Amino acid sequence: MKRTEEKKGPGIVTLITDFGYRGEYAGAMKGAILRVNPRCQIIDITHQVTPQNILEAAFVLKNSYPYFPEGTIHVVVVDPGVGSARRPIVLRKGGHRFVGPDNGVFSFILSAEGKEEGYEITRQILIRTPPSPTFHGRDIFGPVAGHLSMGLEPRVVGPPVKEFVRIDWPRPRKEGQKWIGQILWADSFGNLITSFAEKEWKTRLLRVPFAIRGKRWEIQKIHRTYSEGPREAPMALFGSSGLLEIAWRDGNAEKELGLRAGDPIVIQFQSKGEIGEKR
Amino acid sequence: MKRTEEKKGPGIVTLITDFGYRGEYAGAMKGAILRVNPRCQIIDITHQVTPQNILEAAFVLKNSYPYFPEGTIHVVVVDPGVGSARRPIVLRKGGHRFVGPDNGVFSFILSAEGKEEGYEITRQILIRTPPSPTFHGRDIFGPVAGHLSMGLEPRVVGPPVKEFVRIDWPRPRKEGQKWIGQILWADSFGNLITSFAEKEWKTRLLRVPFAIRGKRWEIQKIHRTYSEGPREAPMALFGSSGLLEIAWRDGNAEKELGLRAGDPIVIQFQSKGEIGEKR
Amino acid sequence: MKRTEEKKGPGIVTLITDFGYRGEYAGAMKGAILRVNPRCQIIDITHQVTPQNILEAAFVLKNSYPYFPEGTIHVVVVDPGVGSARRPIVLRKGGHRFVGPDNGVFSFILSAEGKEEGYEITRQILIRTPPSPTFHGRDIFGPVAGHLSMGLEPRVVGPPVKEFVRIDWPRPRKEGQKWIGQILWADSFGNLITSFAEKEWKTRLLRVPFAIRGKRWEIQKIHRTYSEGPREAPMALFGSSGLLEIAWRDGNAEKELGLRAGDPIVIQFQSKGEIGEKR
Repeated sequence: MKRTEEKKGPGIVTLITDFGYRGEYAGAMKGAILRVNPRCQIIDITHQVTPQNILEAAFVLKNSYPYFPEGTIHVVVVDPGVGSARRPIVLRKGGHRFVGPDNGVFSFILSAEGKEEGYEITRQILIRTPPSPTFHGRDIFGPVAGHLSMGLEPRVVGPPVKEFVRIDWPRPRKEGQKWIGQILWADSFGNLITSFAEKEWKTRLLRVPFAIRGKRWEIQKIHRTYSEGPREAPMALFGSSGLLEIAWRDGNAEKELGLRAGDPIVIQFQSKGEIGEKR
Repeated sequence: MKRTEEKKGPGIVTLITDFGYRGEYAGAMKGAILRVNPRCQIIDITHQVTPQNILEAAFVLKNSYPYFPEGTIHVVVVDPGVGSARRPIVLRKGGHRFVGPDNGVFSFILSAEGKEEGYEITRQILIRTPPSPTFHGRDIFGPVAGHLSMGLEPRVVGPPVKEFVRIDWPRPRKEGQKWIGQILWADSFGNLITSFAEKEWKTRLLRVPFAIRGKRWEIQKIHRTYSEGPREAPMALFGSSGLLEIAWRDGNAEKELGLRAGDPIVIQFQSKGEIGEKR
Repeated sequence: MKRTEEKKGPGIVTLITDFGYRGEYAGAMKGAILRVNPRCQIIDITHQVTPQNILEAAFVLKNSYPYFPEGTIHVVVVDPGVGSARRPIVLRKGGHRFVGPDNGVFSFILSAEGKEEGYEITRQILIRTPPSPTFHGRDIFGPVAGHLSMGLEPRVVGPPVKEFVRIDWPRPRKEGQKWIGQILWADSFGNLITSFAEKEWKTRLLRVPFAIRGKRWEIQKIHRTYSEGPREAPMALFGSSGLLEIAWRDGNAEKELGLRAGDPIVIQFQSKGEIGEKR
């Protein structure tokens, strides 16, 4: 690799959007990136974030960007406020660069350890003018990502930003011996991803007897892999995303249990020997 | 960039098909392109055109290709007549090159300003022989796109074509003070894309009072962005595609209104003060 | 191309998974590949294999890999046994390299003519350690594919494997004059792909009168292309996949006929003039 290439990174641009796979939206944005830098490699992470779900976008970003090489540019466009006052920004942190609206999609980047630099995109020469009021992915974020992949310094896009919009993690809350969390979403396998984070809950769940109960089912154990789970019954494990999942071995927990995003998941810890009795 | 690279373009090949994302169809076509030119970059625009919907494919192409760098090769395979008499063609226009069946998918390229060159693909050495009668994407269009991305001149593929198959835009028709258009399709957000083009209708809709009416709803205003729309009611705006859209702020108009592709959309312009009265 | 590049192949890595297009799974695996080799080109074949359907994955691989240039690396992750005793392997055959679990996904590569070399992935330095017990795509197969795309010799990944897990093709069975096969899956067009292979059945079906019967329909002819089929009736042809398909001209056979994966397809050959009479 030549010296200039080291500086500008590998020229990889990743995409996380809620544009879906139909129609021209993702394609037009890819064109806008390549028009600036025909040599960058564009990588689809997903275009199927639930429409307008900023938390889901933030989470997909958190769980994918660290696996990419340093210098990668990550574009996140889940942007219900497109065309309104929310700022288009560029963020630099931990060797990666991020482009998207300042609406909370970068919350978990901001809350990670380390220092970030942020800039509001105001420099007209870097974007397509006038930008469509409804498609900043194509007219603002795409072209700016193209320039960054050529080695443009983030500070060139506009004035520094110090305060960012952040969304909170939906932390489980306590009620007596119960902790009430929720299903965040189901993945493509129908695994139900919950708001119980491995970092905070794994040790306790492995040490203290517990029960997660549904209408006709109960889980009292954390498994390590899907293939170790019981047959014809739900199971729980900490998945690759770092969150507790309710899964179904060789099957689809979402369909089997009839649960969906937003439904509560209650973990009851042992107290007075009540674990093991079904409600 | 070296001189030879300038001539052959950036080596980008875009894909618009109705193959869907399941199975091997899109993958096998990508392989056929890369087998000819392992160094070109393949960009998925969409593989989810409604099966056999030539108008939709033509429209996705029109709305995406101008954002790509000049020299890009665009492959469009929505091809209900595969294996029949329709001609496989290469088209050059406006610095871009296009490959696909001569069945109308290039209608909006042909109707755009400027001069085009077209050629029928007949040269056997450029394709996989004998081609599968059901998969010209893999055996004809893919390999030819690979060759074009290496710098092959379009005229080399076969004899010139002067007359092309074209499909008409479904223009709204007039009935008294009413203009009757239709819903062309819904995008991934559930925005209902209509046949009223911004270029022809925007000025009038902004100046003359109008109403678009549904069963229990009425729209009398054109908004600029989704986030400016009313809550819990449909809205209209000219989207990034250059067409009038019926949308639902932070929601899904397709589901909320129960409308779908082919349904009529009627715009009534003011006459005798009837606007504002609900039917 | 320089000599070293010839040796290492074109640096193309294809992906076949059941991860779906939602969430971060496919994206995180792409990152893991690019982190090792930022210059390889990643090609999505499909991420929408029916979850845990090893036969379908094996089939998609068989029908796509031969169209790619030699030297391509094909990663297949349909892996219901992830984290269990099944071995992660690298396979070399016919100029291509394959990476994935030894659970049958490579059955049709192994049964093809030619000699293969296989190796179990045990070398820790090549993978992300400790690997997540539920996501070997990201932590084992992705990084190894990245190394292979840089020119790593397959034998370096670990000890040779001589016996592989294989799954059988669901061969049609005979009952009198009837051959009973099945629908394997429907493609995106709703074409019903059956277990009758062109290589074994085409000659007979073109020479001997036959009937394939459903509830209110009968097929007695093999067509060459979709556009030659009858209107408003099912048709049969050998598709690009090399298998007999039940299709519906300009329509969706799956929806029209109400059939789905696993349903039997019965071919009755002529005997005592019974063909032509409906049941």
